[in-house]
Amino acid sequence: MPNLAVRGTVRSTMTPPIPKAQAWIRQFPATASRPLLNLSQGVPGEAPEKIFTDRISELSQDREPANYGSIQGDDGLREAVKEEMGDVYRWNEKGSGGVGVVKEQIAISAGCNQAFYLTMSVLCSEGDEVLIPCPWYFNMLMTFQLLRLKPVPLPLSPSNGFTPSVDQAKSLITPRTRAIALVSPNNPCGTIYPPALLDSFCGLAKESGIALVVDETYRDFVPPSPSRAPGAGDRGKPHDLFDEPDWDETLVSLFSFSKSYKIPGYRLGGIVASRTVLEACRTVADCIQASLRKKNGICPARLPQLALAELLPALRPSLISTSKALASRLKRFEDAISIVPGWQVVSSGGYFSYVKFPDVYGPDVTSERVAERLAIECGVLTLPGCWFMPEREDEGWKSLERMGSELISDRWLRFAIANVSDETVDKIPERLKQLNELYAAGS
Amino acid sequence: MPNLAVRGTVRSTMTPPIPKAQAWIRQFPATASRPLLNLSQGVPGEAPEKIFTDRISELSQDREPANYGSIQGDDGLREAVKEEMGDVYRWNEKGSGGVGVVKEQIAISAGCNQAFYLTMSVLCSEGDEVLIPCPWYFNMLMTFQLLRLKPVPLPLSPSNGFTPSVDQAKSLITPRTRAIALVSPNNPCGTIYPPALLDSFCGLAKESGIALVVDETYRDFVPPSPSRAPGAGDRGKPHDLFDEPDWDETLVSLFSFSKSYKIPGYRLGGIVASRTVLEACRTVADCIQASLRKKNGICPARLPQLALAELLPALRPSLISTSKALASRLKRFEDAISIVPGWQVVSSGGYFSYVKFPDVYGPDVTSERVAERLAIECGVLTLPGCWFMPEREDEGWKSLERMGSELISDRWLRFAIANVSDETVDKIPERLKQLNELYAAGS
Repeated sequence: MPNLAVRGTVRSTMTPPIPKAQAWIRQFPATASRPLLNLSQGVPGEAPEKIFTDRISELSQDREPANYGSIQGDDGLREAVKEEMGDVYRWNEKGSGGVGVVKEQIAISAGCNQAFYLTMSVLCSEGDEVLIPCPWYFNMLMTFQLLRLKPVPLPLSPSNGFTPSVDQAKSLITPRTRAIALVSPNNPCGTIYPPALLDSFCGLAKESGIALVVDETYRDFVPPSPSRAPGAGDRGKPHDLFDEPDWDETLVSLFSFSKSYKIPGYRLGGIVASRTVLEACRTVADCIQASLRKKNGICPARLPQLALAELLPALRPSLISTSKALASRLKRFEDAISIVPGWQVVSSGGYFSYVKFPDVYGPDVTSERVAERLAIECGVLTLPGCWFMPEREDEGWKSLERMGSELISDRWLRFAIANVSDETVDKIPERLKQLNELYAAGS
Repeated sequence: MPNLAVRGTVRSTMTPPIPKAQAWIRQFPATASRPLLNLSQGVPGEAPEKIFTDRISELSQDREPANYGSIQGDDGLREAVKEEMGDVYRWNEKGSGGVGVVKEQIAISAGCNQAFYLTMSVLCSEGDEVLIPCPWYFNMLMTFQLLRLKPVPLPLSPSNGFTPSVDQAKSLITPRTRAIALVSPNNPCGTIYPPALLDSFCGLAKESGIALVVDETYRDFVPPSPSRAPGAGDRGKPHDLFDEPDWDETLVSLFSFSKSYKIPGYRLGGIVASRTVLEACRTVADCIQASLRKKNGICPARLPQLALAELLPALRPSLISTSKALASRLKRFEDAISIVPGWQVVSSGGYFSYVKFPDVYGPDVTSERVAERLAIECGVLTLPGCWFMPEREDEGWKSLERMGSELISDRWLRFAIANVSDETVDKIPERLKQLNELYAAGS
């Protein structure tokens, strides 16, 4: 018997059922004329920009990328991120009145999941509760399980565009609650929470003495608001929270370079928070990623940091064109779905569209079963909504039942559209119609 | 009052006193003729090899480095690591009888500290005990504190070349002990544990039903053994543990690419362990570094993985010459120290030399005070031995006292020699003699 029994919290950490989806794919008899349409992956659809890869190429010849760097991330990159945020959140604009952030309130991490893990590990201790909208991004759940925190599901409202309710959140806060953790634009639902809603959540967090953590991985894909003056910018302002002088007493904002700059393999994300929170995060980061305990010693990967420190302004146009391309693909996708009887896009944004399958499939049909048949019989791979929900036997599910949430009807699939072509999108309606026919035939 | 109070285990996690050392440096009046000699940093002394940076440069033009990769690390790199290990641990040699490892027993991590954190988080749960030789590498302590594990100090024996005793380890094992965590070649002491000693520790771990975790960050700097046949290799075999068919029931070996390939800024390390342990590590890694939960999705940084997958054999000669250069610098350092009255190198290897300061300084002088005066008054920055020990008020210190360990006499300094020139080494004796004079003068 091996001595190396696995004993940590990892034992009770969920393994999302992605391998199931891979098994479905293998059962679909793909042909050249009837290829598999894979809409399951939340990954960039394009290569990084040439100016980025060219700079990486040049910089790799220098000594510096091989050295340890700052635990909190390179100064140059943090300065560049501050400037970029000034554009995204508009405090660079004259008369914006926005306060914004300084580079001391920015830390670079090895990806946004690490940013979330670091944040949760410093804000919470064992047994603490965190409110998290459901459906949820399952890596968040894994972090809670590893850290022995209790996720409290805050149901997104299908009848309200898959947004969370501030009043419902308020009713779920207990003395053990330490944070509300939102994702906007949302994964899996694609919902872009309106600035006013995020403002209300921040107010609730503030009055409750807890943190508001917002994962803004897809923040650069917020479309410009029609209410903004023409010429005021090509991106939508994700929220107004950084306009408040005391934002860092309540807010922690997380971001990722993976999606905006199409470089997930380079592993960079970030945390925007108070100096106090970042100091604690540095201590944890020191253990999980690096090797020397001092200001300069430990770091996320240096090479992409050095390249991006110079290039963020130059990359801005490509980022905006990526955002526009995503928006237009989502529009094409919505138009495609709209012609299929019974199917309905219920929310979308960023990389994702959340889609309701037909009621006529029957009340007992689960999203997992529909996703399975759609994959195996019609060759369209999506992820079923139930994979972003608590298990039926879990306390979280029972809590959703008690709240009378519509979510327990389990009628949705997540379509990821970032890495699919227009051609692929155009093939979807026919496949969904085939599934409709299969269900109609009662097979 | 900010809502974002820091509540996690990070609150009780130590902050090593490196900033103190930085304050010392600022007080030394360095001049061109009397420069500061910084022997405090465990970092490579040279740039990475040109074949490595050239390949990084080329590969960065491809799409692949920007994509997510395998959670466990790229197949190609794991295969290359397996081959490299076959050379290091000699199972590639004809008639070696060694069993070795397969690539499924290798995982790539974002640095060796992360490897240690992942390993401890899956092998132990809260309150478990881990035996760890003292003096210790302080990042290990931080990991224990973050994971709420109890480090049990196993004193290295100054009168026995700073090696740990198997019998003493046995007496410290309790029902809560889950692992013995060794570092060889050692940081901070430089000690290279003999293969027979590691074998005995593995035997003890096996019979006690616990794991033996060996951090082998400096494994490529084990000098060839004089007892080996000529031509049998330019590197010393670190240990024989991989020769056993059931090694993975007891052993977890950790390594780093940072030191051997002089690329700490690229953040790559590794774990060699059973499939069961690695599977659990993957789940934790998924949260702390990456973004998608599936076989291909999550990963350490891709670019250096892709480059090293091809280049390990080509880099072998440079690795061996680095090892020889380190050994010759250590020899030069030992020779330099030998001419200074009262100073004595007590163990050395890899990046480090552990040095005893003169008894005539008096029994009440602490290593921190000696390091401080050596830095401020003589311009030689080292790290005092007590920074690698428990605090005097800690349970660990009291335990060392109860065991009658010589360590509590606190007479040692760590000199890091990897990134200093021969010229710097040659300047050291004069500075130490100055300190001797200062102490002799009673000032």
